[in-house]
Amino acid sequence: MSAKSEYLLWSSSELESLRQHCEAESSLGRSLKVLEQQVAASIARGVVVPGQGEAGSFEHNTHKENARLIEGAALLGRLNNDEAALAHARELLESYAACYREMPFQVARNTNPPGKLFHQILNEHIWLLHASLGLALLKPSLSDSQYRALLEGLFLPMLEMFTETYRHDFDRIHNHGLWAVAAVGICAMVIESPEHLAISIEGLDGSGETGGFLAQIALLFSPQGYYVEGPYYHRFAIHPLCLFAEAIERQQPECNIFAHAEGRIGKSLHVLLSSAYPDGRFPALNDASRTMNLDDEGARCAMALLAARYDVAPELLALARQQQGSWLHANGVALKRAVEGLGRDVQATSQRFTDGPEGNSGAHAHLKQGCGLQAQHVVLTAGQHGMGHGHFDQLGLTYFARGKEVLEEYGFARWVNVETKFGGRYLKENEGYAKQSVAHNLVVVDMQSQHSGDHGLADAHHAELDLLAGSDAAACARCDNAYDGVAMQRTLVLLDSRHTQTPLLVDIFSLSSAVPHVYDYTFNHGGQVVRWWDMESSPHPVSTALTTLEVLGESAGYQHLWKVAQRPAATAHCMTWLDGDSFHSWHQITQAPSEAYQLRVGANDPDHNLRPDAKVMTRLTATSQTFYSLFESHGHFDESLEQCSGARPEVLNLHVLETCEGAAPGIDALEITFRSGRLLLVLAEEGAVHAGRDITLGDHECHIRAGVNLFDL
Amino acid sequence: MSAKSEYLLWSSSELESLRQHCEAESSLGRSLKVLEQQVAASIARGVVVPGQGEAGSFEHNTHKENARLIEGAALLGRLNNDEAALAHARELLESYAACYREMPFQVARNTNPPGKLFHQILNEHIWLLHASLGLALLKPSLSDSQYRALLEGLFLPMLEMFTETYRHDFDRIHNHGLWAVAAVGICAMVIESPEHLAISIEGLDGSGETGGFLAQIALLFSPQGYYVEGPYYHRFAIHPLCLFAEAIERQQPECNIFAHAEGRIGKSLHVLLSSAYPDGRFPALNDASRTMNLDDEGARCAMALLAARYDVAPELLALARQQQGSWLHANGVALKRAVEGLGRDVQATSQRFTDGPEGNSGAHAHLKQGCGLQAQHVVLTAGQHGMGHGHFDQLGLTYFARGKEVLEEYGFARWVNVETKFGGRYLKENEGYAKQSVAHNLVVVDMQSQHSGDHGLADAHHAELDLLAGSDAAACARCDNAYDGVAMQRTLVLLDSRHTQTPLLVDIFSLSSAVPHVYDYTFNHGGQVVRWWDMESSPHPVSTALTTLEVLGESAGYQHLWKVAQRPAATAHCMTWLDGDSFHSWHQITQAPSEAYQLRVGANDPDHNLRPDAKVMTRLTATSQTFYSLFESHGHFDESLEQCSGARPEVLNLHVLETCEGAAPGIDALEITFRSGRLLLVLAEEGAVHAGRDITLGDHECHIRAGVNLFDL
Repeated sequence: MSAKSEYLLWSSSELESLRQHCEAESSLGRSLKVLEQQVAASIARGVVVPGQGEAGSFEHNTHKENARLIEGAALLGRLNNDEAALAHARELLESYAACYREMPFQVARNTNPPGKLFHQILNEHIWLLHASLGLALLKPSLSDSQYRALLEGLFLPMLEMFTETYRHDFDRIHNHGLWAVAAVGICAMVIESPEHLAISIEGLDGSGETGGFLAQIALLFSPQGYYVEGPYYHRFAIHPLCLFAEAIERQQPECNIFAHAEGRIGKSLHVLLSSAYPDGRFPALNDASRTMNLDDEGARCAMALLAARYDVAPELLALARQQQGSWLHANGVALKRAVEGLGRDVQATSQRFTDGPEGNSGAHAHLKQGCGLQAQHVVLTAGQHGMGHGHFDQLGLTYFARGKEVLEEYGFARWVNVETKFGGRYLKENEGYAKQSVAHNLVVVDMQSQHSGDHGLADAHHAELDLLAGSDAAACARCDNAYDGVAMQRTLVLLDSRHTQTPLLVDIFSLSSAVPHVYDYTFNHGGQVVRWWDMESSPHPVSTALTTLEVLGESAGYQHLWKVAQRPAATAHCMTWLDGDSFHSWHQITQAPSEAYQLRVGANDPDHNLRPDAKVMTRLTATSQTFYSLFESHGHFDESLEQCSGARPEVLNLHVLETCEGAAPGIDALEITFRSGRLLLVLAEEGAVHAGRDITLGDHECHIRAGVNLFDL
Repeated sequence: MSAKSEYLLWSSSELESLRQHCEAESSLGRSLKVLEQQVAASIARGVVVPGQGEAGSFEHNTHKENARLIEGAALLGRLNNDEAALAHARELLESYAACYREMPFQVARNTNPPGKLFHQILNEHIWLLHASLGLALLKPSLSDSQYRALLEGLFLPMLEMFTETYRHDFDRIHNHGLWAVAAVGICAMVIESPEHLAISIEGLDGSGETGGFLAQIALLFSPQGYYVEGPYYHRFAIHPLCLFAEAIERQQPECNIFAHAEGRIGKSLHVLLSSAYPDGRFPALNDASRTMNLDDEGARCAMALLAARYDVAPELLALARQQQGSWLHANGVALKRAVEGLGRDVQATSQRFTDGPEGNSGAHAHLKQGCGLQAQHVVLTAGQHGMGHGHFDQLGLTYFARGKEVLEEYGFARWVNVETKFGGRYLKENEGYAKQSVAHNLVVVDMQSQHSGDHGLADAHHAELDLLAGSDAAACARCDNAYDGVAMQRTLVLLDSRHTQTPLLVDIFSLSSAVPHVYDYTFNHGGQVVRWWDMESSPHPVSTALTTLEVLGESAGYQHLWKVAQRPAATAHCMTWLDGDSFHSWHQITQAPSEAYQLRVGANDPDHNLRPDAKVMTRLTATSQTFYSLFESHGHFDESLEQCSGARPEVLNLHVLETCEGAAPGIDALEITFRSGRLLLVLAEEGAVHAGRDITLGDHECHIRAGVNLFDL
């Protein structure tokens, strides 16, 4: 693998092999075709180097695209022996070299220092990284004077800006810092500047512990590889990580970079790719787009690097089938070969990822069941707060089934690169709604966000989480610091049985307090409601249609919610909705009666910054309370063929069995009645599990073996 | 083509040829594969003949599927020489023959008389038609006693029910009547009953003018082939029409059925297929599903029949590429051959279809521009009311561009075959909202529906419509009978110019009255609003955020609309929304100031029967008034790649040029200012067009040549 790489990341022989693997129907072939079209269009248009503009503006987009074109045209030139493409890459670089020194700095728009091409230096780092890779490919064809002109006009002033002008920022441990060191390090390798390379790897003080690539790797990711800001920023941080790691491995194999910090790079790749839904999208945890997916450039590099350098789990390789394109690199070829040898039915497995620099600040569960696009994937969050991009969502839940997200994560309030939406930056509704607890699938206490909506306070705490034995997909999370005097516990089980085609999601959310609180159980759903709070036992209750819609509250995100419908207090609620071609039903029982609301996002939003999403909330007041919920995906509807089946759920009823407190402490027993029979789900806390213990629940004698016990009655 | 057909619609040699054209990647191949899977699953399951049930129930669905399986298994048996499939078809028929006579009649659920298998006889007609086609394929393999048992137990009692028990209903001119005569006629051909065949072709009185297939063809469709209920019911009526016509042509070529009523069958096929959007969906005019498309069985037969029997327009053949499957029939082979010879870039052309049995009851315009999925398609409705399925939508507009419907037709309030939604039947909100004028893209007068929402009154009137010369896609419609004392006129132009990538839709809606009225201009849109009423000239006006949402009105559909946001009165409004990957902007100017509302469907809907769709409305009070609107599709947003361009519209301003009344009567001049220049659009009424006439508009000297004149300034 450590072939001599004439072009930094690519060797001549690797390029030859890559060319042979670019069949039209392969991911590599599609990526090559896209690249060929982009470069041809750019050559036809000619070199365009505009002035300065806002994020999302023509100027911003053109600069961004030009850096990719420099790398892309140079790569295409080498791949296809295409002199015109090489010349185009050179001309682009020369045009920047001709103007960069004289260009003024941009105006800063946020806390990030300004660059010249872009209003934040981060974009300028990304620019340098791509341009440096392009230079590596071009360099052997440049005359000495051509090369010197590029260095003097462009690369040296950029390095100077990043390491001198913004020296104070260079060692910052942050995803931006990873871009900075990778850009400077790769540029340094290409232009052969050992000093710049040294600080980019070991930091300004040369210790490798407070700055530079080694420190970033060790400090940004948990020992297991989890990235505190969540998958959206993880895939962004992993891009420079993959490129710089690959470059170091090739140029300085003695660094043994893949072994650094107990192999943290590989662990980080593993966590990122494991967090993707079966359709390749990343759950939108913390500040995140709802559509970011495995076709992101960083994720493509990560998948290819994992396949090339590690013994990778088949279920992650299977996800590569969701990628439309691939990294045009030897690692992309390695990925292609690995996927070719893979079977069709690869089972997904549940995983727990610890959080925090020491790996002891809580954890995140990814519960999985099934194969391919039909697999289910539940995320339960109980780790650290995601710093400035964190959402107040401890014990939050997201749920993917039947090819779509069923319980939706709202994501961020931001239209990235849409100039007309505040220049593509974060909108004020991101703080006002998206980050608040009520935007998530969880229980909100007293209409306030967790940790009083204070990032500093939230960063100082974390929750706890364990996977449960006795099931392939079960977890229990606990948090007693989100609200004063309220202990919260949530248990999730993907329950597979003969009674339903698709496993059920069982959700048991308990809150304990000495004094009464208002508890709001809430979830976000897509599609259209079919029947609302319509229990099998009372076939035709009427929803309360409201004559005016009112805003649900005044703060903590409640100010952005319209109450669209309301249902009187009851201890059981049930709703069916249709999303695409699948029905979903929710069943909930509580001990105290709860009012149920249908909500819509969008109140107090004069600028239309929020999506008009649908939510459900059940509200009750109690000291301690447990919300028992079931989510069932059922039936099929093809509107255009006018075919429908299974519009009613299989679950008819839910019932909590009373356990004699003295006889069975720490036991929770839920009886589920289906059309085709009954199941008893018994959850036993750690202290309540004894090998071979028998207990009586209702009129059933049950043998408790593990945390999760299932009895078909 | 009139091969001897041993199996009624199929001959042995045709089946041989069909088999050879079923390559895996072809429409025929996909349809064959689906059929093979369905038959294999049914054989594995064994024969299931349940009792009676609701629409959408297991019983209903199983009976429906069994009829298709009888035909399908028999066809597969012949196609693949598959004895097991033939035996399965026979066993299914025998199971029905064993119980049908003794089965009681169902309970009637609507005005349609009840059958035995289904609650409406229509479904029983459809059942007989498929079963008869199956019998035709099976017959040569049946012993005499097997054949007699099927006749006595099943086919004869069905024929008796349809022609004796429900004799009074047999001649009804209606889409249901077409199914009745086709089912009886095809069954009569198979079992060789000349009496039943005669009444199915020529009606009970034998005249061919008051009932039977000949009368249905002549009376159900306009001379140009338009079907009064619109495309959704047209594709339903065309299915039996295609099957019976093909059977008659094969068995009684002397009938010359394709020449009947001036070739009305071919004209009807042409109109139906011409009405499909570029993505193959039918505009949801009148009572209709929003997803019905060219993959409907009837539409597949229509496309194949048109290709086999007629000289078909290339732009209709190009639409066949949107079909996933095809009719497994010689006509499907003919279609496949025709499409193979077709070029890629087939231009769509605008058409006008006259309505009414005499073809003089108004017309419908289908304005088209462009090729393939990127083509634009506008429908302007100004024909007859659609009888019981009619919506009060004269001068209504639907608009498809960039691969999606941009100005949406709401369609019906019905979940076909969804048992939990009123047994899949029409919901009361269909009358309450979907049919009302305000549900459509038009101007509502005094918050009332057209023709007072009275179907009888609406059926007695019609509007008028002409295409306009000087443009490939322009029409003008007029209606002065929808509201007392108010004359309405709407002109639509798809305006192609160098200033925009995609042609603009220009919409000029004029209302004239001697007394003041409230005029509500309204349209339905998808996606998410980006900027609202945000004119270029006043970059940051604030939308009025409402603190409570109120219902917009009390009747005529207004009772189902929430007012979500309101903007103060102005003579110019502008909004941009994002739907999928495309931005759309709407610009409107009026003479009197109008208030603008953002609306959402769903008030007073306790059963959740309505979709929560978004609408926009501008309201003003005036005697006479013209709403000048522009719809522009622009830019591109790929959220997952975080790429955005063209988020702002190219149109900056709209301005109506004053015409000196005496000098230029009947002239409407709209000046459109783009980022890249100005256009002057001059519309001249018929009397105002003189060859070579020059007029002065503002400071421009204009040479008027046609109804639509465009000047690039």
